[in-house]
Amino acid sequence: MKSFASDNTSRVHPKIMESIVNANNYDAKSYGYDEYTQRAVEKFKKLFGDDIDVYFVYNGTAANILGLSAITNTYNSIICSEWAHINTDECGAPEKNIGCKIISLSSSDGKIKVEDINKHLFAIGVEHHSQPKVISITQSTELGTVYTKEEIIEISEFAHKNNMYVHMDGARIANAACHLKQDVREFTKDAGVDVLSFGGTKNGMMFGEAVVFFNKNLSEGFKYRRKQFMQLHSKMRYISAQFEALLTDDLYLKNARHANEMAKYLEERLKELPIVRITQKVEANAIFASLPREIIDKLLEKYYFYIWNEEKNEVRWMTSFDTKREDIDEFVDDLNKIVKNVFK
Amino acid sequence: MKSFASDNTSRVHPKIMESIVNANNYDAKSYGYDEYTQRAVEKFKKLFGDDIDVYFVYNGTAANILGLSAITNTYNSIICSEWAHINTDECGAPEKNIGCKIISLSSSDGKIKVEDINKHLFAIGVEHHSQPKVISITQSTELGTVYTKEEIIEISEFAHKNNMYVHMDGARIANAACHLKQDVREFTKDAGVDVLSFGGTKNGMMFGEAVVFFNKNLSEGFKYRRKQFMQLHSKMRYISAQFEALLTDDLYLKNARHANEMAKYLEERLKELPIVRITQKVEANAIFASLPREIIDKLLEKYYFYIWNEEKNEVRWMTSFDTKREDIDEFVDDLNKIVKNVFK
Amino acid sequence: MKSFASDNTSRVHPKIMESIVNANNYDAKSYGYDEYTQRAVEKFKKLFGDDIDVYFVYNGTAANILGLSAITNTYNSIICSEWAHINTDECGAPEKNIGCKIISLSSSDGKIKVEDINKHLFAIGVEHHSQPKVISITQSTELGTVYTKEEIIEISEFAHKNNMYVHMDGARIANAACHLKQDVREFTKDAGVDVLSFGGTKNGMMFGEAVVFFNKNLSEGFKYRRKQFMQLHSKMRYISAQFEALLTDDLYLKNARHANEMAKYLEERLKELPIVRITQKVEANAIFASLPREIIDKLLEKYYFYIWNEEKNEVRWMTSFDTKREDIDEFVDDLNKIVKNVFK
Amino acid sequence: MKSFASDNTSRVHPKIMESIVNANNYDAKSYGYDEYTQRAVEKFKKLFGDDIDVYFVYNGTAANILGLSAITNTYNSIICSEWAHINTDECGAPEKNIGCKIISLSSSDGKIKVEDINKHLFAIGVEHHSQPKVISITQSTELGTVYTKEEIIEISEFAHKNNMYVHMDGARIANAACHLKQDVREFTKDAGVDVLSFGGTKNGMMFGEAVVFFNKNLSEGFKYRRKQFMQLHSKMRYISAQFEALLTDDLYLKNARHANEMAKYLEERLKELPIVRITQKVEANAIFASLPREIIDKLLEKYYFYIWNEEKNEVRWMTSFDTKREDIDEFVDDLNKIVKNVFK
Repeated sequence: MKSFASDNTSRVHPKIMESIVNANNYDAKSYGYDEYTQRAVEKFKKLFGDDIDVYFVYNGTAANILGLSAITNTYNSIICSEWAHINTDECGAPEKNIGCKIISLSSSDGKIKVEDINKHLFAIGVEHHSQPKVISITQSTELGTVYTKEEIIEISEFAHKNNMYVHMDGARIANAACHLKQDVREFTKDAGVDVLSFGGTKNGMMFGEAVVFFNKNLSEGFKYRRKQFMQLHSKMRYISAQFEALLTDDLYLKNARHANEMAKYLEERLKELPIVRITQKVEANAIFASLPREIIDKLLEKYYFYIWNEEKNEVRWMTSFDTKREDIDEFVDDLNKIVKNVFK
Repeated sequence: MKSFASDNTSRVHPKIMESIVNANNYDAKSYGYDEYTQRAVEKFKKLFGDDIDVYFVYNGTAANILGLSAITNTYNSIICSEWAHINTDECGAPEKNIGCKIISLSSSDGKIKVEDINKHLFAIGVEHHSQPKVISITQSTELGTVYTKEEIIEISEFAHKNNMYVHMDGARIANAACHLKQDVREFTKDAGVDVLSFGGTKNGMMFGEAVVFFNKNLSEGFKYRRKQFMQLHSKMRYISAQFEALLTDDLYLKNARHANEMAKYLEERLKELPIVRITQKVEANAIFASLPREIIDKLLEKYYFYIWNEEKNEVRWMTSFDTKREDIDEFVDDLNKIVKNVFK
Repeated sequence: MKSFASDNTSRVHPKIMESIVNANNYDAKSYGYDEYTQRAVEKFKKLFGDDIDVYFVYNGTAANILGLSAITNTYNSIICSEWAHINTDECGAPEKNIGCKIISLSSSDGKIKVEDINKHLFAIGVEHHSQPKVISITQSTELGTVYTKEEIIEISEFAHKNNMYVHMDGARIANAACHLKQDVREFTKDAGVDVLSFGGTKNGMMFGEAVVFFNKNLSEGFKYRRKQFMQLHSKMRYISAQFEALLTDDLYLKNARHANEMAKYLEERLKELPIVRITQKVEANAIFASLPREIIDKLLEKYYFYIWNEEKNEVRWMTSFDTKREDIDEFVDDLNKIVKNVFK
Repeated sequence: MKSFASDNTSRVHPKIMESIVNANNYDAKSYGYDEYTQRAVEKFKKLFGDDIDVYFVYNGTAANILGLSAITNTYNSIICSEWAHINTDECGAPEKNIGCKIISLSSSDGKIKVEDINKHLFAIGVEHHSQPKVISITQSTELGTVYTKEEIIEISEFAHKNNMYVHMDGARIANAACHLKQDVREFTKDAGVDVLSFGGTKNGMMFGEAVVFFNKNLSEGFKYRRKQFMQLHSKMRYISAQFEALLTDDLYLKNARHANEMAKYLEERLKELPIVRITQKVEANAIFASLPREIIDKLLEKYYFYIWNEEKNEVRWMTSFDTKREDIDEFVDDLNKIVKNVFK
């Protein structure tokens, strides 16, 4: 049964699995000093230019935390949306591992705006107050929306003007690129982002994410940090081989485009059901919807997904590279039946 | 070319790769709430009994740190050998992530003894002094030696008598089991060990290690810890499927036994070369040897391995499940040639 | 010139200074093993009962952080008001030193309510989410208001029902006691508070605060924590002698009562000036007021105080044990003159 | 009864107390923005030159930790003597608060040597290994000995050549200056020390130590660090007034010189007692001696001091600015009586 819980319930994409299996031939140097890693790094340089630093880590939480740790002192604060993964879904990993303060801004669509960020730039230079140093944005956001390039540029310019850095949690960066129909470089490096978590696992990989530094001054000592933060993989080739496949023939975009299309198709089909109210713009691979609790509960008996907001009876349904049109048809048909049954 | 650098330069064992590929069929619940994980945990319970708690993490450093963090307050110290991975090869991960003090004991064979540990049990109850709380031993040790069951029991009894815990870094626990010809349970849980890092990656897995709690009181809140310490894998089934394979039909023992035998074979063949002096007992899958620097350097031109001690011209050669008799023959033949050339 | 910036711009109360000077006779054991400390602890036991644990530290930030660290795991969150000292005025000390998450609730009067706290008790048992463990309240609050005993009982009962603890930042606890006309024990220990920071510095002491555990199970290992957190004073007698004086003949209440009365008197006199709008209830020793920026700026030329909210032209004026009626008269007279000058 | 336990069992020097009392006149700005602090900082600049940064903190542990934290990344190690306060007497404060590794060198006299430090400069650039960054020396040492200027220069040159910093724990720096008959600047700043903990408490102050940066690039952001590490005193003037007195008319030297002389006198008088063997050179204000346990125990019935090494029956006796010749006479007479009694 296809799950609509998250894009990480999906299997590994066959081409990525194939790349892993192919990497399994013989010995390779450990800790990233192998040829697979060299080639994967080259793929990233093709995407973003040669003047970058890339480091692979195990998961998205680690990519965020390690990247942020490189640009944050313990006495700094990181400003992000209240929905940011670093704020709500990492069990306090930034506080524990970096020691800094998280300032979360309320947001109706998962995005944050310069005017709201600006309200927190007070007491600068006052030692009683955590000094804001990083603006962290998620692209696509945790609410399935996507920042435009212009919005990111505005945030970056504001950040740099205020002696701050911009971090992007790009766990679903490919979904954003597909929505924007823009090259990933355009709305990251070229838009002023300093450090990027480039997502793999949610886009068809088995494990592995990349921390990409667009400003190489920021990555000093990062290899020690990765080891000390328990994120240096010994058999690195198996992460690298995945990234190599993901970045070959635009697989990362193909996967994301399909996931996005499936979300759009689900949105389309849900129009049949006026009792289901879509609560966020469908720009990436997530659909947020509110519907009567009774129906949610019945649907949960068959399908695995998360209730996002208990009070509002809001759920999140996610699609992935692996979601099939028939999965959605079956899901909506089932939903239809439940609705009819409940309201008969 | 076969590397003798480490058992983590080896590929993934074919049966483990097969298990991964088989797990790649369709959707599975994330974060360990899947059936693969349930089955893998069952395998561990078969090994160690039902009254244990098992958590999978990404790598050996994390297994050690997370396990230790569960039994250590920041104001405690951990006593270990000077050669312990936690002391020398984790870039200060215990200090950073736990905040505790490491007390390292000098050791000629990688093992530590109760009489040496005892010297550090002073200033108990004095608030100026980090309070010793954990004895951490590595089995097999970083020097390729193996604690006997009796030695472990002695350490455990001493620890518990002194209100301390015993942690075992079992990155190569299967190699120890094969040397001892004892069940892993005999010299861990039954010998008084409280928390165990059970190794996977160095014994044929792609990634993944297990933290095993033999005292379930110690694992309270551990699932939060794993997440916050950035070690919760979303697509957990791919770790679990590996452990399932590793623990099926004693693959973990078969792999380790082969690695040990290859080390023994290498030791045997090195007898041809009196200029090579074996410096540690060969009990697991490592050989430590000293030989003239000139020869080391020539050998390094063809083979990848580590110089262990520059001053003593001591090298480490490791074998793995994947080392073949011919690899060793070729290696020793090459070494022979070099020696002859140098001393001709 | 009397400052209205904070109660910590005041000197040390003469009786406390006298006690310090008297303690300066000869040798005393270090680190709190002296007779002054014994006697000061006895004073606390008289206030709160014998079944408590008391530890002296250097300052209020440390009292809060150390007390909280004893009842919080790194994967926990602490819920407090947005105005809480631990949230805004400790430069991220909780995050750095404890590693936990701070959840701040918006509040118009500095107090937090059970219904608002309750909104954050979600995802309990879900490992992605920092688990709420402590409710921290400030008494009197950073906005000069005071929780009633009933309000505290309600919070404590809610906390304990939800397996949480109650921490009270009592940097100005004596001011609260005077306002409530209740014994400090009534609205702390007897109202369900678990750990209390008992303030000294802002109430006439030179340095020193107390961490008071009402539940002795919570203070296990605290002496090591105090040392490791850099808060164990070697010449402890000089803190203890201060507390001894502060708790003798109700000096702590006399000081606070006077400060409160001076705040009331200032409030009274400000009624002459309708252009000054009092923005918070005056229940302790702080007055919050908004007035035209032009007037604030002129007043700042002569007096030292803080602008609390730049946007709202809101200032904070604080009184202390040392504020004299004439100081206030002079201050209000000066303010009057400025107003007249500006609006002439 | 005069204690020989530590120089921190002594009272506050009368002139310092007087300075405190004089500072207690009226309001002063908090957090170090007062005139006392300005004047005290000037005193430090007179000692060390204008191009320094000085910050006052509460105690010696904090001075060490905060100073070290400014020059150490979490993935660095700090090399020091096994006897270093940071290694043995701060309950793991460096590990907890900085997150770095401590490498302690065995030492017979409390000093460390370049050749021993050098042995730990391996695996530079290897990410598995904490990277050595700081050499921390204590002056005078914990064993009562004193580094010569030349020894310090040698260590500094070695450190800087290896891209490391030199930290000096100067809790008893004045005692060292008196022994060396050199200006404190000569064997600190001028000898290449980068960061200094300048001791106050053990030399007649009530509380307060100074972190002195000789390289101002290293103190960036230090004021936030001090606050976040819970070491910013609100009523700062009371620390500053002490330092002002300590650095006026060379009081710091007078106090230390007297303490040193008393140690010398004690050493002299102990010659009467061949059964007491002095185990370290008496260069500052400590005497280490071994004598029969029976005698130690009897002596402890009357005097308060520490047994330094239980195995060796070694004790530490310390003198202070406040130790009188008669105290020593009485002490040695008592010791004489005990010896006679025991061996009669």
